[in-house]
Amino acid sequence: MFKKGVKLWKDTKKIIPGGSMLYSKRAENFLPEIWPSYYKKAKGCYIWTLENKKLLDFSLMGCGTNTLGYSVNKIDNAVIQRIKKSNMSSLNCTEEVLLAKKLIKIHPWAEQVKFARTGGEANAIAIRIARSINPLRQNIGVCGYGGWHDWYLAANLKNKSNLNNHLFKNLEAIGVNKKLENTSFVFKYNNIDSVKKLIKNKKIGIILMEVQRYEKPKKNFLKEIRKLCDKHKIILIFDECTTGFRETYGGLHKKYKVYPDIAMFGKAIGNGYAINAIIGKKKFMKGAEKSFISSTFWTEAVGPTAALETIEEIKRIKSWKKISKAGKYIKKNWLKLSVKYNLNLKITGLDSIPRFEMEKNFEIYKTFITKKLIEKNILSSNYIYLSTAHNKKVIDKYLMELEKIFKTISKTSLKNIYKQVKKNLPFHVYKK
Amino acid sequence: MFKKGVKLWKDTKKIIPGGSMLYSKRAENFLPEIWPSYYKKAKGCYIWTLENKKLLDFSLMGCGTNTLGYSVNKIDNAVIQRIKKSNMSSLNCTEEVLLAKKLIKIHPWAEQVKFARTGGEANAIAIRIARSINPLRQNIGVCGYGGWHDWYLAANLKNKSNLNNHLFKNLEAIGVNKKLENTSFVFKYNNIDSVKKLIKNKKIGIILMEVQRYEKPKKNFLKEIRKLCDKHKIILIFDECTTGFRETYGGLHKKYKVYPDIAMFGKAIGNGYAINAIIGKKKFMKGAEKSFISSTFWTEAVGPTAALETIEEIKRIKSWKKISKAGKYIKKNWLKLSVKYNLNLKITGLDSIPRFEMEKNFEIYKTFITKKLIEKNILSSNYIYLSTAHNKKVIDKYLMELEKIFKTISKTSLKNIYKQVKKNLPFHVYKK
Repeated sequence: MFKKGVKLWKDTKKIIPGGSMLYSKRAENFLPEIWPSYYKKAKGCYIWTLENKKLLDFSLMGCGTNTLGYSVNKIDNAVIQRIKKSNMSSLNCTEEVLLAKKLIKIHPWAEQVKFARTGGEANAIAIRIARSINPLRQNIGVCGYGGWHDWYLAANLKNKSNLNNHLFKNLEAIGVNKKLENTSFVFKYNNIDSVKKLIKNKKIGIILMEVQRYEKPKKNFLKEIRKLCDKHKIILIFDECTTGFRETYGGLHKKYKVYPDIAMFGKAIGNGYAINAIIGKKKFMKGAEKSFISSTFWTEAVGPTAALETIEEIKRIKSWKKISKAGKYIKKNWLKLSVKYNLNLKITGLDSIPRFEMEKNFEIYKTFITKKLIEKNILSSNYIYLSTAHNKKVIDKYLMELEKIFKTISKTSLKNIYKQVKKNLPFHVYKK
Repeated sequence: MFKKGVKLWKDTKKIIPGGSMLYSKRAENFLPEIWPSYYKKAKGCYIWTLENKKLLDFSLMGCGTNTLGYSVNKIDNAVIQRIKKSNMSSLNCTEEVLLAKKLIKIHPWAEQVKFARTGGEANAIAIRIARSINPLRQNIGVCGYGGWHDWYLAANLKNKSNLNNHLFKNLEAIGVNKKLENTSFVFKYNNIDSVKKLIKNKKIGIILMEVQRYEKPKKNFLKEIRKLCDKHKIILIFDECTTGFRETYGGLHKKYKVYPDIAMFGKAIGNGYAINAIIGKKKFMKGAEKSFISSTFWTEAVGPTAALETIEEIKRIKSWKKISKAGKYIKKNWLKLSVKYNLNLKITGLDSIPRFEMEKNFEIYKTFITKKLIEKNILSSNYIYLSTAHNKKVIDKYLMELEKIFKTISKTSLKNIYKQVKKNLPFHVYKK
């Protein structure tokens, strides 16, 4: 079906370790031996593979980057206009200034902004800034995913499973200096006691967390964390790289009315173009002047130009409402199908990143579903990063195909299902 | 002269700590109160400021990024074509595969490639990879500039001046975990004894160095380092972010026929677009699969598309020869003027990044020269990142204006010069 892509993937792994620069874009996470892996072009919620096959994208949408769909003319044209006037010079671009102002306007609690190009960088910059301000308490309490940098993986140095349940299982910290053992400590989402314990025992000076991943905050969890941070003079950092601009016009923290000291944005703010922002209160952000934080390509203009236009478009069409509504509709229908076919789906995730699991033999069923959907020209996984291009028509098509598969599952033995997918089971390095 | 730019710079510093995301693009390094700071467009070796003033760029050329000049149609068009087909999707782009192949072809000692977007990242990835392979000897010997990440600034934790003479003076390591003290150690360029001393005393497992910055290698310095690394099983990493594709078709190490285990490329390979590459021997690069190294925006397609086209163009016009020739011509003329006006210029740097200093009161003279040149619509510093757009005509114009200034200097008292620049003296955070 995707001969060219499958072959290219295999060949590429010989010269690019892991094949893709993003763990989540490895074929092995989806359908080894089948997954197309490469694209020629993309538009809206469609992707054209190397074989010129047109696929509906109900999977990553760039990994949460393209909430407005692929190839949005308005954004692309702004970037192209910027490119024609050069995206780089010895002087600075004004787009970054406008973008800084816009992010502050959207988040009035924040006063200053720094930019980077990747989420890993943005997280590491926030940590550096916080540590500059609180040099006597360098230890970090962490919850959720935080990227590939040393400060985050340090949490797994002692035990490879510490960061399990925070996105990836058994994240490998090899190559992180052993001296960083006991510098990052994990707490459980919605478990305020686990936070209190860290504060009491681990000299925590910084808390870095995702506002929400799978579960919603319960019992004022976020407010309680804010209170604890205030009480113990802990710098509170919200990583909004995944959650930002998906449920509100800005950070998800706006919905819960809990305000951090520093927050990071990435992914959705550039609609596919590389840009990340670190925003924060002045008394913390001044750490960015105290410490040395500097990079040449943080000054190119494509990123801020795309972000300016993306955020404008997000505001104009209130995209966070559309993608959340679409996700609610999908969740509702998953539940309906789950009951109808007795599948016991566990449905979680932000509304705009709906996600399902099954309790037993999920890897096998997931692979079966992915395989059957790709036969219908739908790229999928067990979670969907939605975009405004996912209109009711394409969602209903997806649900219709999914229902057929669920029906088959309900009538087929596990053994039989297994037989059909055993060659395509995902082999995870970092099990989700 | 540059009222809009000067005002915007002042205003921006209130919302972006430091003003620019790159230390080297801060007005304070050049001409406070005068430097234009922002650009509208750039083409060839010209930049148009917010005031629509057209300036000749004899300064950073994007900070070494644009060796082919600004706004090169061929490269921009390739990027624009890629954008029109989407620079992002849930699948991977083929440009990164082609780019990996190209870099390996140019450097046959290397077998595998990873990509990032910024130089700081590329350096940190190389360190992570090396540490994954050599987990029992995590300490690093370093020479030259290595970026803002913890592993590099760790060298300054004990003493803020350790990294002096490696690009920036008094690099502030505040915010880097104190536990990383005694993990990175500096050695002196062209001083093999300082390397031997580190190996003997500091359990060095990795050497990361720039192939050349100001001085040329003497007494087979690079070969001696390679030998020491082989003898002591130390992983040798060359940071070619600044030197790559400026003096050879590829890494500067090709000129000296000394081959590292891992090398990084950035800056020039994207001609202004954000892209960095880490290349290396398979037995080391496999560390990139062992450790968790992953980022969403490392999968966007603008970077590799630009790099593919840039490297093709570099090869076609042999740009490294042109910029080196131009630099030699400038060095020769600086020397001539130095003798003629008795200025005792110390001339260093790669030929394509010529650089001069004066022994006494250099900050004052440098400011005077920069100020006088900008009055003639020439952006300058005491070093020039050359590009192929710097043809003989513009270089001669620069030299002609420079001669007038040198002449003035030779006939004017220091006191008088000082009076003219005292309001515009650079105030460095990190003195070069």
